Amino acid sequence: MGQDIDPFRAISVSRRAHDLKAEGRRILHMEFGQPSTPAPRGAIAKAHDVLDTDPMGYWESRPLKERICRHYKDEYGIDLPPGRVTLTCGASPALVLALSTAFNPGDRIALARPGYVAYRNTLRALNLEPVEIACGADVRFQLTAAALDAIDPVPAGVIIASPANPTGTIIPASELAELAAVAKAKNIRVISDEIYHGLSYGPDTCSMLEFSPDAYIVNSFSKYFSMPAWRLGWLVSPEDGAARTSAYVGNLFLTPPSLSQHAGLVAMDSAEELDGHVEVYRKNRELMLEALPRLGLERIAPPDGAFYIYADISKYTNDSLAFCLKLLEDTGIATAPGVDFDPVGGHRFMRFSFALSTPQIEEAISLLEPWFAAQPQS
Amino acid sequence: MGQDIDPFRAISVSRRAHDLKAEGRRILHMEFGQPSTPAPRGAIAKAHDVLDTDPMGYWESRPLKERICRHYKDEYGIDLPPGRVTLTCGASPALVLALSTAFNPGDRIALARPGYVAYRNTLRALNLEPVEIACGADVRFQLTAAALDAIDPVPAGVIIASPANPTGTIIPASELAELAAVAKAKNIRVISDEIYHGLSYGPDTCSMLEFSPDAYIVNSFSKYFSMPAWRLGWLVSPEDGAARTSAYVGNLFLTPPSLSQHAGLVAMDSAEELDGHVEVYRKNRELMLEALPRLGLERIAPPDGAFYIYADISKYTNDSLAFCLKLLEDTGIATAPGVDFDPVGGHRFMRFSFALSTPQIEEAISLLEPWFAAQPQS
Repeated sequence: MGQDIDPFRAISVSRRAHDLKAEGRRILHMEFGQPSTPAPRGAIAKAHDVLDTDPMGYWESRPLKERICRHYKDEYGIDLPPGRVTLTCGASPALVLALSTAFNPGDRIALARPGYVAYRNTLRALNLEPVEIACGADVRFQLTAAALDAIDPVPAGVIIASPANPTGTIIPASELAELAAVAKAKNIRVISDEIYHGLSYGPDTCSMLEFSPDAYIVNSFSKYFSMPAWRLGWLVSPEDGAARTSAYVGNLFLTPPSLSQHAGLVAMDSAEELDGHVEVYRKNRELMLEALPRLGLERIAPPDGAFYIYADISKYTNDSLAFCLKLLEDTGIATAPGVDFDPVGGHRFMRFSFALSTPQIEEAISLLEPWFAAQPQS
Repeated sequence: MGQDIDPFRAISVSRRAHDLKAEGRRILHMEFGQPSTPAPRGAIAKAHDVLDTDPMGYWESRPLKERICRHYKDEYGIDLPPGRVTLTCGASPALVLALSTAFNPGDRIALARPGYVAYRNTLRALNLEPVEIACGADVRFQLTAAALDAIDPVPAGVIIASPANPTGTIIPASELAELAAVAKAKNIRVISDEIYHGLSYGPDTCSMLEFSPDAYIVNSFSKYFSMPAWRLGWLVSPEDGAARTSAYVGNLFLTPPSLSQHAGLVAMDSAEELDGHVEVYRKNRELMLEALPRLGLERIAPPDGAFYIYADISKYTNDSLAFCLKLLEDTGIATAPGVDFDPVGGHRFMRFSFALSTPQIEEAISLLEPWFAAQPQS
C-alpha cells in the first residue's frame, strides 16, 4: 500500500454541520474555502444554452486556453502560448499532474507550514517527501528565500502559495523574485499555486511566472470566478514540460467538464460581477478584523488576500478540532481546525472563511461574541 | 522527472479530424469511445433546474451514493454500503485513486495486451510497473486465470476489463471466478474496470465484486449513461480500504461536479431511454459485422459488448497510425490506431467505435467499402 495520509478534518466538521442542518439547525458555513455565490450570470446562461444544444463529448476548449493566455498578458504582462496551458477538473488534479510529471518518487519538496492540507497529503500519496518549513508570525507565515536557501540537502522542488491558505498572506514581488533566484541557482523546481489570485485587499499578486519562467502554475475557477463545483482549473507547464503534461493528462484524467469549459469562458469576461464579490469579501474582512479583538483573538495572520482568517486560539484550547466541533454544536458555525494546516502547531489555531454574504458574517459575529466570552481561558 | 509515457495517439487523429472539419470537411467520429447521444432528457432537465436554484459548492451526493449501491443490488445481487463508494470526476481519477492507494512504487501490475492505453500509461506515471500479458485471438484478447497464474514473479495487482477496450470482449462468469481464485490464492489485488457494463450484445456482464469482494471496482457515467463530458464516475473500495480512499480523494481530487451528480442521479432512473441507445449500438454492430468481410477485415475480436470493433489490418499495413490518418484524409472517417492499445502488435490493428447513429454508420460503411477496395494488399 502507498503511504497513509491524514483525512481533511474540516470535512468531518462539515459533515457534522450538514447533519445538524438536516435536524433543522441553522448553520453558517465558514469551514471551506468556497464562495457562497453562484457562477456569474452569463456563465449560467451559457450553460443553459449548451445543455440544450450540445451533446457534450470529451472536449478541450481551444478558445478557453487562448482566453487564459490573454489573462496572463492582461494581468501579468506575460506572453504564454496556449500549448503550455492544460485544462483540468479543478486545481487538485492540476497539482497531481505537476507533481507527477516533474518529480521522482522519494524527491523532497519544500513547503510552508502552515499550508493547505492537500499539499502535504498529495505529496505523500505520490510518494514524494514533504519538507515542511515552519513559518511563524515573524515571516507572516510564508516561505522566504532565506528559508528556502537554508534547506539542507537541497530539495528537488518547492510549493509556493500566495495568497496562502490558511492565512491569506501575500508574498511581495521582491521576495518572489528572490525565491525564484534561489530556486534557479539551486535547480529547485517551483510549483506555484495561484488559486487565490484576484482576491487581494491591498498588495499586488504577481504570478511566479514573472520571475521563474520554468515554474508550474496551478490555478482554477473555484475562487475568484466563483465556480467551485464546476470543477475547472488549469496548469501552466514550462516550455520543455508541456508535451509531457499533455501525455499525462490524456492518460490520467482526460478533459474537464464540457459545460464548465463553455461557462468558464464567459466567466472570464464577467469581471464587473466578480469584482462585486471581492467588494463583499473586503467588507466581510473588515467586519471580522474589527470583531476579532472582542473575541479575544488578537493574534492573527495578516489576511492580505484570499478569504480566510487564521487565528491563534491558544488562550482557549490546545485541541483545535474539539474546539471547532464545540463551536459548531453550540452556535451552528462551522470552521476549520488548524491541525489541517499545521500538524505541529495547528492544534492552537483555527481558520474562518469569510466568503459568505455580509449579513451572514454579521450574524456569525453576533453568535461568536457571546460564545467566545463564555469560553474559559487558560 | 517521473517516467515518460506515450501520448494517446487517437487524440492526434481526432485533432486532425477537427482541423479538417474546420476546413469544411464532413467528418465521422469513430476514434473515441464515447456515445454521440446526449445525457438522458431527465438528467438535462434536472441540470437546468439545478443551474437556476443551487449556488453549487463542493458537494458529495449521498443520494447518488445510495442509488449506486441499489444498482449493485439490482444488477449483481450485491449488498454494498454507501461508505465504500467514492464519487470521482470520471473513471480516470477513480483508477488513479485505486492504484495510488493500493500499491507501492515499483509494484508490478498485470494487464492484458491489447488493452486501454491509459492503464499502461497511468501505471507508469504512478511509478508502477505494467506487466503486459499478450492476449491473442485464441483467448479472445482477454486475460485468463491460467495466464495470471503463470506470471512469475507474482504481481502485486491485476487490472481486469470486461467488456474490454479495444476489443469489446466479455470474460465469462466462470473465468472471472477462476481469476478471482488465483488472485486470492496468490494475494494479487484486483482492479476491475467495469465502465462498459450495460453495453452487452449477448453475454452477461458480472461484476468482479461477485467473485472478489476485496477488489477495487472502477465505473462511470461516460458510456451506458451517455454522459462522458459530465465527468462523473465512481470507485468501489474494499471494506478495509474505504477510509484510505476517502482520505486520498479529499486531498487529491475533492468532489466531482455538483451539476453532474444531480443529473447522474436522474440518469440512473432513465433505463428506457438508455436501453434505446443500446439497441442502436446493437443495430450498428450488426451492420459493421456484415460489412467488415467486404472491407477485407475478416479477422476481428468478437465484439460481445462495449461499442468497438478491433480489426486486424495486417493485409493492408504495418503502420496503423499512418493508415488511420490516410483513411481520415481520404474519407473523413476518424478511427483509433491499434498502437494505442498494443505497442507490440497494434501497428497491424485498428479500432472502430460504432457509438454513432445508425445513419452515420451506414454512411461510414458506404465510404469505407470503396476506400478499402482501393488499398493495396501485401
